[in-house]
Amino acid sequence: MRDNAKTPERHAQRMSAKQKIMQERIARADKEQGVLLVLTGPGKGKSSSGFGMLARALGHGMKVGVVQFIKGRRETGEEAFFRQLPGVDYHVMGEGFTWDTQDRERDIQAAEAAWKIAGRMLEDPSFDLVLLDELNIALRYDCLDLDRVLDDLQARPDMQHVVVTGRYAPQHLIELADTVTEMKVVKHAFKDQGVKAQKGIEL
Amino acid sequence: MRDNAKTPERHAQRMSAKQKIMQERIARADKEQGVLLVLTGPGKGKSSSGFGMLARALGHGMKVGVVQFIKGRRETGEEAFFRQLPGVDYHVMGEGFTWDTQDRERDIQAAEAAWKIAGRMLEDPSFDLVLLDELNIALRYDCLDLDRVLDDLQARPDMQHVVVTGRYAPQHLIELADTVTEMKVVKHAFKDQGVKAQKGIEL
Repeated sequence: MRDNAKTPERHAQRMSAKQKIMQERIARADKEQGVLLVLTGPGKGKSSSGFGMLARALGHGMKVGVVQFIKGRRETGEEAFFRQLPGVDYHVMGEGFTWDTQDRERDIQAAEAAWKIAGRMLEDPSFDLVLLDELNIALRYDCLDLDRVLDDLQARPDMQHVVVTGRYAPQHLIELADTVTEMKVVKHAFKDQGVKAQKGIEL
Repeated sequence: MRDNAKTPERHAQRMSAKQKIMQERIARADKEQGVLLVLTGPGKGKSSSGFGMLARALGHGMKVGVVQFIKGRRETGEEAFFRQLPGVDYHVMGEGFTWDTQDRERDIQAAEAAWKIAGRMLEDPSFDLVLLDELNIALRYDCLDLDRVLDDLQARPDMQHVVVTGRYAPQHLIELADTVTEMKVVKHAFKDQGVKAQKGIEL
Protein backbone atom coordinates (compact mmCIF):
# COMPACT_ATOMS: atom_id res chain seq x y z
CA MET A 1 0.00 0.00 0.00
CA ARG A 2 2.91 2.30 0.62
CA ASP A 3 4.44 1.44 -2.71
CA ASN A 4 3.91 4.47 -4.91
CA ALA A 5 4.10 2.56 -8.20
CA LYS A 6 0.48 3.28 -8.99
CA THR A 7 1.03 7.00 -8.54
CA PRO A 8 1.63 7.96 -12.21
CA GLU A 9 -1.86 7.05 -13.45
CA ARG A 10 -3.58 8.42 -10.39
CA HIS A 11 -1.50 11.51 -10.78
CA ALA A 12 -2.63 11.96 -14.38
CA GLN A 13 -6.25 11.55 -13.26
CA ARG A 14 -5.80 14.10 -10.53
CA MET A 15 -4.13 16.56 -12.87
CA SER A 16 -6.93 16.21 -15.35
CA ALA A 17 -9.49 16.72 -12.58
CA LYS A 18 -7.52 19.73 -11.39
CA GLN A 19 -7.46 21.21 -14.88
CA LYS A 20 -11.22 20.91 -15.03
CA ILE A 21 -11.58 22.53 -11.61
CA MET A 22 -9.27 25.34 -12.66
CA GLN A 23 -11.22 25.92 -15.86
CA GLU A 24 -14.41 26.13 -13.84
CA ARG A 25 -12.71 28.49 -11.41
CA ILE A 26 -11.61 30.81 -14.17
CA ALA A 27 -15.09 30.72 -15.71
CA ARG A 28 -16.56 31.94 -12.43
CA ALA A 29 -13.61 34.00 -11.30
CA ASP A 30 -15.69 36.05 -8.91
CA LYS A 31 -16.22 33.03 -6.70
CA GLU A 32 -13.81 32.47 -3.88
CA GLN A 33 -12.13 29.10 -3.50
CA GLY A 34 -10.33 27.12 -0.89
CA VAL A 35 -6.60 27.21 -1.45
CA LEU A 36 -4.06 24.41 -0.95
CA LEU A 37 -0.85 26.01 0.26
CA VAL A 38 2.44 24.13 0.68
CA LEU A 39 5.32 25.53 2.73
CA THR A 40 8.52 23.59 2.16
CA GLY A 41 12.31 23.92 1.92
CA PRO A 42 15.05 23.89 4.54
CA GLY A 43 14.71 27.46 5.89
CA LYS A 44 13.14 28.49 9.19
CA GLY A 45 9.52 29.58 9.21
CA LYS A 46 7.44 26.82 7.63
CA SER A 47 5.47 25.68 10.66
CA SER A 48 5.39 29.12 12.23
CA SER A 49 3.93 30.46 9.00
CA GLY A 50 1.23 27.80 9.11
CA PHE A 51 0.44 28.74 12.69
CA GLY A 52 0.38 32.44 11.76
CA MET A 53 -2.21 31.64 9.09
CA LEU A 54 -4.18 29.80 11.74
CA ALA A 55 -4.13 32.92 13.92
CA ARG A 56 -5.23 35.05 10.98
CA ALA A 57 -8.12 32.68 10.24
CA LEU A 58 -9.17 32.74 13.90
CA GLY A 59 -9.05 36.54 13.72
CA HIS A 60 -11.70 36.24 11.00
CA GLY A 61 -13.83 34.00 13.18
CA MET A 62 -13.08 30.89 11.16
CA LYS A 63 -13.04 27.33 12.49
CA VAL A 64 -9.67 25.61 12.18
CA GLY A 65 -8.23 22.13 12.52
CA VAL A 66 -4.62 21.19 13.23
CA VAL A 67 -2.89 17.84 12.92
CA GLN A 68 0.78 17.82 13.87
CA PHE A 69 2.62 14.90 12.27
CA ILE A 70 5.75 15.21 14.38
CA LYS A 71 5.65 15.00 18.11
CA GLY A 72 8.73 15.29 20.20
CA ARG A 73 11.17 16.95 17.85
CA ARG A 74 9.54 20.33 18.00
CA GLU A 75 8.87 22.50 20.95
CA THR A 76 5.30 22.97 21.91
CA GLY A 77 4.58 26.69 22.30
CA GLU A 78 2.04 26.50 19.47
CA GLU A 79 0.25 23.63 21.09
CA ALA A 80 0.05 25.39 24.48
CA PHE A 81 -1.21 28.50 22.78
CA PHE A 82 -3.74 27.23 20.25
CA ARG A 83 -5.15 24.17 21.95
CA GLN A 84 -6.96 26.23 24.58
CA LEU A 85 -8.68 28.54 22.09
CA PRO A 86 -12.29 28.25 20.95
CA GLY A 87 -12.69 27.34 17.29
CA VAL A 88 -9.55 25.16 17.31
CA ASP A 89 -9.55 21.37 16.95
CA TYR A 90 -5.97 20.34 17.77
CA HIS A 91 -4.42 16.89 17.38
CA VAL A 92 -0.86 15.69 17.82
CA MET A 93 0.17 12.38 16.37
CA GLY A 94 0.70 9.61 18.95
CA GLU A 95 3.61 9.97 21.34
CA GLY A 96 5.31 6.90 19.94
CA PHE A 97 5.93 8.56 16.66
CA THR A 98 9.31 10.25 16.66
CA TRP A 99 11.19 9.03 13.55
CA ASP A 100 13.84 8.18 16.09
CA THR A 101 12.16 5.07 17.43
CA GLN A 102 13.44 2.85 14.63
CA ASP A 103 10.11 1.12 15.06
CA ARG A 104 8.75 1.50 11.58
CA GLU A 105 5.49 -0.37 12.10
CA ARG A 106 4.65 1.82 15.06
CA ASP A 107 5.48 4.95 13.05
CA ILE A 108 3.22 3.84 10.24
CA GLN A 109 0.36 3.07 12.62
CA ALA A 110 0.71 6.47 14.26
CA ALA A 111 0.81 8.22 10.88
CA GLU A 112 -2.29 6.36 9.73
CA ALA A 113 -4.17 7.19 12.91
CA ALA A 114 -3.23 10.84 12.41
CA TRP A 115 -4.35 10.76 8.78
CA LYS A 116 -7.70 9.36 9.87
CA ILE A 117 -8.25 12.51 11.92
CA ALA A 118 -7.00 14.71 9.09
CA GLY A 119 -9.23 12.86 6.64
CA ARG A 120 -12.31 13.58 8.76
CA MET A 121 -11.43 17.29 8.79
CA LEU A 122 -11.03 17.19 5.01
CA GLU A 123 -14.55 15.80 4.70
CA ASP A 124 -16.13 18.36 7.00
CA PRO A 125 -17.07 21.70 5.44
CA SER A 126 -17.40 23.27 8.88
CA PHE A 127 -13.57 23.48 8.95
CA ASP A 128 -12.53 26.66 7.14
CA LEU A 129 -8.81 25.93 7.42
CA VAL A 130 -6.88 22.74 8.13
CA LEU A 131 -3.19 22.86 9.04
CA LEU A 132 -1.29 19.62 8.39
CA ASP A 133 1.97 20.41 10.15
CA GLU A 134 5.01 18.40 9.02
CA LEU A 135 2.87 16.17 6.83
CA ASN A 136 5.65 16.31 4.23
CA ILE A 137 7.94 14.47 6.63
CA ALA A 138 5.46 11.63 7.09
CA LEU A 139 5.24 11.39 3.29
CA ARG A 140 8.99 11.60 2.90
CA TYR A 141 9.46 8.65 5.23
CA ASP A 142 6.79 6.84 3.27
CA CYS A 143 4.62 6.33 6.34
CA LEU A 144 1.46 7.34 4.49
CA ASP A 145 0.12 6.40 1.11
CA LEU A 146 0.71 9.46 -1.09
CA ASP A 147 -2.22 8.73 -3.39
CA ARG A 148 -4.64 8.53 -0.52
CA VAL A 149 -3.37 11.82 0.89
CA LEU A 150 -3.62 13.57 -2.48
CA ASP A 151 -7.06 12.14 -3.19
CA ASP A 152 -8.38 13.27 0.19
CA LEU A 153 -6.91 16.74 -0.32
CA GLN A 154 -8.48 17.05 -3.74
CA ALA A 155 -11.88 15.79 -2.59
CA ARG A 156 -12.15 18.34 0.24
CA PRO A 157 -14.94 20.93 0.40
CA ASP A 158 -14.64 23.71 -2.22
CA MET A 159 -14.15 26.52 0.24
CA GLN A 160 -11.76 24.78 2.62
CA HIS A 161 -8.20 26.06 2.88
CA VAL A 162 -5.40 23.61 3.66
CA VAL A 163 -1.84 24.44 4.68
CA VAL A 164 0.77 21.66 4.48
CA THR A 165 4.22 22.19 5.99
CA GLY A 166 7.51 20.34 6.11
CA ARG A 167 10.70 19.86 4.15
CA TYR A 168 10.76 17.65 1.09
CA ALA A 169 7.24 18.24 -0.24
CA PRO A 170 6.62 15.50 -2.83
CA GLN A 171 6.52 16.74 -6.42
CA HIS A 172 2.94 15.52 -6.94
CA LEU A 173 1.76 17.49 -3.91
CA ILE A 174 3.47 20.59 -5.34
CA GLU A 175 1.65 20.04 -8.61
CA LEU A 176 -1.70 19.69 -6.85
CA ALA A 177 -1.14 22.78 -4.70
CA ASP A 178 -2.31 26.27 -5.58
CA THR A 179 0.49 28.14 -3.84
CA VAL A 180 3.92 26.80 -2.89
CA THR A 181 6.64 28.63 -1.01
CA GLU A 182 10.13 27.25 -0.58
CA MET A 183 11.98 28.55 2.45
CA LYS A 184 15.66 29.01 1.71
CA VAL A 185 18.36 29.29 4.38
CA VAL A 186 20.33 32.48 3.86
CA LYS A 187 21.91 32.24 7.30
CA HIS A 188 21.26 30.18 10.40
CA ALA A 189 22.33 31.26 13.89
CA PHE A 190 22.80 27.79 15.29
CA LYS A 191 24.50 26.17 12.35
CA ASP A 192 26.65 29.09 11.21
CA GLN A 193 27.59 30.70 14.47
CA GLY A 194 27.45 28.06 17.13
CA VAL A 195 24.72 29.87 19.02
CA LYS A 196 22.95 27.47 21.31
CA ALA A 197 19.45 26.48 20.18
CA GLN A 198 16.92 28.40 22.25
CA LYS A 199 14.76 26.51 24.63
CA GLY A 200 11.28 27.93 24.42
CA ILE A 201 11.30 30.14 21.39
CA GLU A 202 13.07 28.31 18.63
CA LEU A 203 14.15 30.96 16.15
CA MET B 1 19.38 61.99 7.39
CA ARG B 2 17.95 59.39 5.10
CA ASP B 3 21.07 59.50 2.97
CA ASN B 4 22.87 56.25 3.67
CA ALA B 5 26.31 57.56 2.69
CA LYS B 6 27.57 57.21 6.24
CA THR B 7 26.51 53.58 6.38
CA PRO B 8 29.87 51.98 5.41
CA GLU B 9 31.82 53.14 8.47
CA ARG B 10 28.97 52.56 10.85
CA HIS B 11 28.51 49.19 9.24
CA ALA B 12 32.14 48.31 9.88
CA GLN B 13 31.76 49.41 13.51
CA ARG B 14 28.65 47.30 13.89
CA MET B 15 30.29 44.28 12.33
CA SER B 16 33.26 44.60 14.63
CA ALA B 17 30.92 44.92 17.62
CA LYS B 18 28.99 41.92 16.38
CA GLN B 19 32.17 39.89 16.03
CA LYS B 20 33.00 40.70 19.64
CA ILE B 21 29.50 39.73 20.75
CA MET B 22 29.75 36.47 18.81
CA GLN B 23 33.12 35.67 20.35
CA GLU B 24 31.67 36.24 23.79
CA ARG B 25 28.68 34.11 22.86
CA ILE B 26 30.86 31.24 21.77
CA ALA B 27 32.96 31.58 24.91
CA ARG B 28 29.87 31.11 27.06
CA ALA B 29 27.95 28.86 24.69
CA ASP B 30 25.71 27.51 27.39
CA LYS B 31 24.04 30.90 27.78
CA GLU B 32 20.96 31.58 25.74
CA GLN B 33 20.81 34.69 23.61
CA GLY B 34 18.22 36.81 21.92
CA VAL B 35 18.11 36.11 18.20
CA LEU B 36 17.58 38.57 15.34
CA LEU B 37 15.63 36.76 12.66
CA VAL B 38 14.90 38.20 9.20
CA LEU B 39 12.19 36.77 6.94
CA THR B 40 12.45 38.13 3.41
CA GLY B 41 11.99 37.25 -0.26
CA PRO B 42 8.96 37.34 -2.56
CA GLY B 43 7.19 34.12 -1.42
CA LYS B 44 4.10 33.88 0.76
CA GLY B 45 4.56 33.32 4.48
CA LYS B 46 6.87 36.02 5.82
CA SER B 47 4.41 37.92 8.00
CA SER B 48 2.42 34.83 8.88
CA SER B 49 5.63 33.19 10.04
CA GLY B 50 6.37 36.20 12.25
CA PHE B 51 2.88 35.95 13.71
CA GLY B 52 3.28 32.21 14.24
CA MET B 53 6.45 32.89 16.24
CA LEU B 54 4.45 35.41 18.24
CA ALA B 55 1.88 32.72 19.05
CA ARG B 56 4.66 30.31 20.04
CA ALA B 57 6.20 32.91 22.34
CA LEU B 58 2.80 33.59 23.91
CA GLY B 59 2.42 29.85 24.40
CA HIS B 60 5.57 30.06 26.53
CA GLY B 61 4.12 32.92 28.58
CA MET B 62 6.42 35.51 27.02
CA LYS B 63 5.61 39.19 26.59
CA VAL B 64 5.59 40.33 22.96
CA GLY B 65 5.48 43.61 21.04
CA VAL B 66 4.30 44.13 17.47
CA VAL B 67 4.76 47.11 15.20
CA GLN B 68 3.20 46.77 11.74
CA PHE B 69 4.84 49.09 9.24
CA ILE B 70 2.20 48.73 6.56
CA LYS B 71 -1.41 49.56 7.17
CA GLY B 72 -4.01 49.20 4.50
CA ARG B 73 -2.33 46.87 2.06
CA ARG B 74 -2.73 43.84 4.22
CA GLU B 75 -5.77 42.26 5.70
CA THR B 76 -6.16 42.46 9.41
CA GLY B 77 -6.91 38.99 10.76
CA GLU B 78 -3.69 39.05 12.78
CA GLU B 79 -4.55 42.37 14.30
CA ALA B 80 -8.06 41.27 15.28
CA PHE B 81 -6.64 38.11 16.78
CA PHE B 82 -3.53 39.28 18.66
CA ARG B 83 -4.51 42.77 19.77
CA GLN B 84 -7.06 41.45 22.26
CA LEU B 85 -4.67 39.02 23.97
CA PRO B 86 -2.90 39.61 27.28
CA GLY B 87 0.88 39.93 26.97
CA VAL B 88 0.63 41.62 23.55
CA ASP B 89 1.50 45.27 22.86
CA TYR B 90 0.24 45.90 19.33
CA HIS B 91 0.84 48.98 17.18
CA VAL B 92 -0.05 49.73 13.60
CA MET B 93 1.63 52.59 11.83
CA GLY B 94 -0.61 55.65 11.25
CA GLU B 95 -3.48 55.29 8.84
CA GLY B 96 -1.97 57.83 6.49
CA PHE B 97 0.88 55.54 5.64
CA THR B 98 0.04 53.43 2.63
CA TRP B 99 2.91 53.84 0.13
CA ASP B 100 0.13 54.76 -2.25
CA THR B 101 -0.49 58.24 -0.92
CA GLN B 102 2.36 59.77 -2.92
CA ASP B 103 2.74 62.01 0.10
CA ARG B 104 6.34 61.27 0.97
CA GLU B 105 6.65 63.63 3.90
CA ARG B 106 3.62 62.08 5.53
CA ASP B 107 4.99 58.57 4.94
CA ILE B 108 8.30 59.51 6.55
CA GLN B 109 6.57 61.04 9.55
CA ALA B 110 4.43 57.94 10.02
CA ALA B 111 7.47 55.65 9.71
CA GLU B 112 9.39 57.71 12.24
CA ALA B 113 6.49 57.69 14.69
CA ALA B 114 6.31 53.91 14.28
CA TRP B 115 10.05 53.56 14.83
CA LYS B 116 9.77 55.58 18.03
CA ILE B 117 7.42 52.90 19.38
CA ALA B 118 9.67 50.11 18.11
CA GLY B 119 12.70 51.82 19.61
CA ARG B 120 11.06 51.90 23.02
CA MET B 121 10.36 48.17 22.81
CA LEU B 122 14.00 47.58 21.82
CA GLU B 123 15.11 49.38 24.99
CA ASP B 124 12.77 47.49 27.28
CA PRO B 125 13.99 44.09 28.53
CA SER B 126 10.47 43.17 29.63
CA PHE B 127 9.70 42.44 25.93
CA ASP B 128 10.84 38.89 25.18
CA LEU B 129 10.04 39.12 21.48
CA VAL B 130 9.44 42.09 19.18
CA LEU B 131 7.90 41.61 15.73
CA LEU B 132 8.66 44.40 13.25
CA ASP B 133 6.27 43.46 10.49
CA GLU B 134 7.13 44.80 7.01
CA LEU B 135 9.94 46.93 8.40
CA ASN B 136 11.98 45.98 5.33
CA ILE B 137 9.51 47.85 3.15
CA ALA B 138 9.89 51.06 5.17
CA LEU B 139 13.65 50.69 4.78
CA ARG B 140 13.37 49.90 1.08
CA TYR B 141 11.43 53.10 0.49
CA ASP B 142 14.06 54.93 2.51
CA CYS B 143 11.50 56.21 5.00
CA LEU B 144 13.71 55.37 7.97
CA ASP B 145 17.38 55.92 8.60
CA LEU B 146 18.99 52.49 8.20
CA ASP B 147 21.85 53.23 10.59
CA ARG B 148 19.49 54.24 13.34
CA VAL B 149 17.44 51.07 12.86
CA LEU B 150 20.53 48.83 12.89
CA ASP B 151 22.02 50.60 15.91
CA ASP B 152 18.78 50.25 17.88
CA LEU B 153 18.54 46.57 16.94
CA GLN B 154 22.10 45.92 18.01
CA ALA B 155 21.76 47.82 21.30
CA ARG B 156 18.69 45.85 22.41
CA PRO B 157 18.64 43.72 25.58
CA ASP B 158 20.75 40.53 25.34
CA MET B 159 17.87 38.12 25.72
CA GLN B 160 15.37 39.87 23.45
CA HIS B 161 14.32 38.15 20.22
CA VAL B 162 13.42 40.29 17.20
CA VAL B 163 11.69 39.16 14.03
CA VAL B 164 11.82 41.48 11.00
CA THR B 165 9.68 40.72 7.96
CA GLY B 166 9.24 42.09 4.45
CA ARG B 167 10.69 41.78 0.97
CA TYR B 168 13.96 43.43 0.10
CA ALA B 169 15.78 43.13 3.43
CA PRO B 170 18.78 45.47 3.19
CA GLN B 171 22.14 43.71 2.94
CA HIS B 172 23.44 45.29 6.15
CA LEU B 173 20.43 44.04 8.08
CA ILE B 174 21.08 40.54 6.71
CA GLU B 175 24.67 40.78 7.91
CA LEU B 176 23.59 41.88 11.37
CA ALA B 177 20.96 39.14 11.66
CA ASP B 178 21.53 35.74 13.26
CA THR B 179 19.08 33.82 11.09
CA VAL B 180 17.75 34.79 7.66
CA THR B 181 15.17 32.94 5.60
CA GLU B 182 14.33 33.87 2.03
CA MET B 183 10.87 32.84 0.90
CA LYS B 184 10.88 31.76 -2.73
CA VAL B 185 7.76 31.55 -4.89
CA VAL B 186 7.48 28.08 -6.38
CA LYS B 187 3.89 28.66 -7.43
CA HIS B 188 1.28 31.28 -6.67
CA ALA B 189 -2.46 30.67 -7.01
CA PHE B 190 -3.45 34.21 -7.81
CA LYS B 191 -0.66 35.10 -10.18
CA ASP B 192 -0.32 31.79 -12.01
CA GLN B 193 -3.87 30.58 -12.17
CA GLY B 194 -6.10 33.63 -12.05
CA VAL B 195 -7.71 32.51 -8.80
CA LYS B 196 -9.29 35.49 -7.13
CA ALA B 197 -7.43 36.74 -4.06
CA GLN B 198 -9.27 35.60 -0.97
CA LYS B 199 -10.93 38.16 1.20
CA GLY B 200 -10.30 37.26 4.80
CA ILE B 201 -7.71 34.54 4.66
CA GLU B 202 -5.05 35.64 2.24
CA LEU B 203 -3.18 32.49 1.22
